[in-house]
Amino acid sequence: MKKHKFNLDPPKLLVLGFAAVILIGALLLTLPVATEDGKGLSFINALFTATSATCVTGLVVVDTGDTFTMFGELVILSLIQIGGLGFMTFATFLFLLLGKRISLKDRLLLKEAVNHLSIAGVVRLVKRILLFTALIEMAGGIILSIRFSLDMPIGKAIYYGFFHAISNFNNAGFDLMGNFQSLTSYVGDPTVVLTISALITLGGLGFLVMNDLYEYRETRRLSLHSKVVIYTTLMLTIGAAIFIFLFEFGNVKTIEPLSIQGKVLGSLFQAVTPRTAGANTLPIGDLTHSTLFLTIILMFIGAGSGSTAGGIKITTLAVLAAAVWTQIRGKEDVVLFRRKIVMETILKALTVTVIGLFIVVTVTMILSITDRGHNFIMYLFEATSAFGTVGLSMGLTPELSLMGRIIIILTMFAGRVGPLTIALAITMRRKRDAFHYPEGKIMIG
Amino acid sequence: MKKHKFNLDPPKLLVLGFAAVILIGALLLTLPVATEDGKGLSFINALFTATSATCVTGLVVVDTGDTFTMFGELVILSLIQIGGLGFMTFATFLFLLLGKRISLKDRLLLKEAVNHLSIAGVVRLVKRILLFTALIEMAGGIILSIRFSLDMPIGKAIYYGFFHAISNFNNAGFDLMGNFQSLTSYVGDPTVVLTISALITLGGLGFLVMNDLYEYRETRRLSLHSKVVIYTTLMLTIGAAIFIFLFEFGNVKTIEPLSIQGKVLGSLFQAVTPRTAGANTLPIGDLTHSTLFLTIILMFIGAGSGSTAGGIKITTLAVLAAAVWTQIRGKEDVVLFRRKIVMETILKALTVTVIGLFIVVTVTMILSITDRGHNFIMYLFEATSAFGTVGLSMGLTPELSLMGRIIIILTMFAGRVGPLTIALAITMRRKRDAFHYPEGKIMIG
Ligand SMILES: [K+]
Ligand SMILES: [K+]
Repeated sequence: MKKHKFNLDPPKLLVLGFAAVILIGALLLTLPVATEDGKGLSFINALFTATSATCVTGLVVVDTGDTFTMFGELVILSLIQIGGLGFMTFATFLFLLLGKRISLKDRLLLKEAVNHLSIAGVVRLVKRILLFTALIEMAGGIILSIRFSLDMPIGKAIYYGFFHAISNFNNAGFDLMGNFQSLTSYVGDPTVVLTISALITLGGLGFLVMNDLYEYRETRRLSLHSKVVIYTTLMLTIGAAIFIFLFEFGNVKTIEPLSIQGKVLGSLFQAVTPRTAGANTLPIGDLTHSTLFLTIILMFIGAGSGSTAGGIKITTLAVLAAAVWTQIRGKEDVVLFRRKIVMETILKALTVTVIGLFIVVTVTMILSITDRGHNFIMYLFEATSAFGTVGLSMGLTPELSLMGRIIIILTMFAGRVGPLTIALAITMRRKRDAFHYPEGKIMIG
Repeated sequence: MKKHKFNLDPPKLLVLGFAAVILIGALLLTLPVATEDGKGLSFINALFTATSATCVTGLVVVDTGDTFTMFGELVILSLIQIGGLGFMTFATFLFLLLGKRISLKDRLLLKEAVNHLSIAGVVRLVKRILLFTALIEMAGGIILSIRFSLDMPIGKAIYYGFFHAISNFNNAGFDLMGNFQSLTSYVGDPTVVLTISALITLGGLGFLVMNDLYEYRETRRLSLHSKVVIYTTLMLTIGAAIFIFLFEFGNVKTIEPLSIQGKVLGSLFQAVTPRTAGANTLPIGDLTHSTLFLTIILMFIGAGSGSTAGGIKITTLAVLAAAVWTQIRGKEDVVLFRRKIVMETILKALTVTVIGLFIVVTVTMILSITDRGHNFIMYLFEATSAFGTVGLSMGLTPELSLMGRIIIILTMFAGRVGPLTIALAITMRRKRDAFHYPEGKIMIG
C-alpha cells in the first residue's frame, strides 16, 4: 500500500516494458505495408514474430526475408535492437542499483560484481554501452557488407551486412536469406562464419565483461565475474566444437562432404550459435542425435548474465559446477578463481536452473500434446530453443498449431525475462528469518 | 600405505562385492543347464542378465521366462535377493557406521537419521531387516500365488507368485510371463496391480523408514528422514498417476479401451513402476510422449535412500525442492517438516543430481552413436532406466549392439552403486579447509 504508485518493482518494470514493446511491434507487423503480399500478418503470427524479435530469440513462423517488406524487416530490426540493448542496459542498471541498495543495508553481496562502477559512473556506463554496441555492430556490418557485395548489389549487400551484424550481436537469430535457410549457404565461408561468431560471442559476454575488458588497460585486472564468463565461454565453445566435429564427421547430410576447413568452420559455428544466437550454417534437422542433444544442453545454458543472450547463463553453470567439484574433492569452500562463492549465490544458481528445467520440461510435454505426430526430440529442442531465446529449430516452428504458437510465445517471453527476474527477486526479497528451526538430518544418495 | 590391507573403504567394498556377485552369477548363467536350449547364455548376455539382476534393474536382452530353465531363473532370483537385500543392509550399516564415526569426531551430521538405532542394536537391526523382508515377500507371495492359481496349475502358481513377489519387493523388474510382455495381461486386475504396487512401494521406502514405522507404536514419532520419504512417495505416486491418467485417457493403444477401473489401475501402476521397479502393465512403446517424458523423470528420481530402489532418491529431490522453494519465498533457512536442512546436505544432493544427469546425458549420447536408427527418446529412456535401475524399456534392450550392451551394463552398475558411494565418499572425505579464500561476487540469472 505504498503512496508512490509509480514505484514499480524493477522485475515488474522489465516485464511490463517488454510486453509493451512486443505489443507495439506486433501491431506494426499486422499493417499491410509490413508484408510483401500487402495483407499484413495475422495477429497471432505478428505477435509471435514481435515476441521472437524483442526477446532476441529468432524462432520464426514465417520466413523473414520472403514475407516482409523492408518496412516490416526494419520493424523487426528495431525490436531486436530495443530488446537486446534495452535488456542489457536494464540488467546492468539493476545490478548496480541492487549493489547500492544492498551495500546501504550493510550487505555486500553484489558489490564486487560491479566493483569499479560507482553510481556516479552510470552515465558513463550508458554512453559506453551505446559506444560498444555502435562500434561492434559497425565493424561487423562493414565486414559483412564487403563480403556480401561479392554476391549481391552493393546497396543490398550493405543492408544485409548491417541487418545480420545487428541481429547477431543481439543474439537474435533473424536473417534475410529466405526459405528458412539461415546461413547454410555460407557454411564454409571463413569471413561470414568468423565475423558472425565474433558478433555472437561478444554480445553474449555482457556489458560488464566488455567494460572490464575495455578498462583492462588501466586496471590490469578482471573481476571474478568477467574471468568466469570469459573462461567458461572459451571452454564451452572449444569443447562443443570438438565434440560436434566428431559427432558429425561421417554425416553426409552435414559436414562429411565439406573440406577440412569447412568441417571445422561448420562445427565451430554449430558450437557458437546455441549460446544463444539462433543462426545456423548446418541443417539442424539433419544433425545426429548426439549433436542435437549437445545443442539442447548448450541452448539451456546460454551465455553471460546481463548480455544479449539467454539461457540460465554460464555463471549459473560455473557456480553449480564449482559446487559439485568442491564436494567431489571433499573441500569445504566453493571456490572459483581463488574467490569463495557464498552459499546465497549457489542457492540462487540452483533456483534459476531448477525453474528453467521445470519450464522446459513442462513446455515439452504441452507441445507433445498440442502438436502431436512429431519426434520427441523436436518438442524438446523447440522448448529449449524458446526458453533459451536461441531461435534454432528442427523445423517445428512454422508447423506449430495455434496453441503451440501461444505456448512458444509465452516460453520465449519467460525465457527472456525469467532468469533475470527470478535472480533479482531472490536478491531483493531476501531477509533474515525471524526464527530458526533446529537442524534435521536426512540421507542422500 | 596402511598396514591393514583388508581395511577397504566401504564404497570400494560395495563396488567389489557387487562385481564379484555379478561375475559369479554371469558364469552360472553361461552353464548349459541354465537355458532351455541347453547351450547356456553367451558371456555378454549372461553378464548383462547377471548385472541387471544383481543391480535389481530388470532390463533384459533375452526374455527371462522363455529363455531360462528353472535353474537359470533361480540363479536370477538369488542374484535379485542378494543384490536387493545386500544393498539395503550394506547401506543401512554404512549410515550407522558413519554416524558413529562422525559423532566420535564430534560431528553429528548423520546422527538423527539413525537416531534410536544404537550400534548395540545392530544385531537387532539385521534380524529386523531379514524379518521385514521375509514377512513382506511371504505375504505378497501368498496373495499372488492364490491369484495366479486361477490361471495356472497350483505348483506353477506358487512358483510364479513368489518369484514375482521377491522380484518386485526388491524392485528388480524381472518377470516370467514370456515374450517380453511383463504384466500387461494383468493391467486391469486389482489383486495383481495393488499387491505388486504395495511390494514395490514398501521396497522403495528403505529399511530405516520401515523400522521407523515398525517402532511407531512405541515411539509415536517418525524421524525427519521417514517423514520426507513417506510424504514425497505419496505425492509423487498420486500426482504421477493423475497426470498419466490424463495423458493416456484417449490413447487407444493403452488405457482408452479399458473400463474406468482399468484406466485407474493402469495409470496407478505406470506411476508406481518407474520408481524403480520395472514391471509394466501398459505397453511402454505405445505410451504418449508426455507419459514417457514423465516416466523418464520419475525413473531418474527413484525412491528412498538405502532401499531396494535406484535413482538419485526422493530425499535428494525433496532437499533440492525445499532449497528452491526457500529461495522463491525469500527465506533464509531451508526447512523440511520444521527441521533446518544444513548446507552440507543440500550440496550433497546437488552433487548426486548433477553426476546423475551427467551419466544419463553421456550414456544417451553414446547409445545414439553405437545404436543408430532409433528415435531419440528410446536412447534417453533406456539410459535413464539403466541409471535408475528401473528396467522399463521402449523395446531397445534386446536390439542393443554389443557396444550398447556393454554401455548399459556399466550404466546399470553405476546407477546401483553410484549415488550411494558418491554420497558416502563425500561424507567420509569431508574435512575443514586449511585456509579460506576471500569471498568473490558473481552475477546469476
Ligand atoms: K537468439
Ligand atoms: K528395477
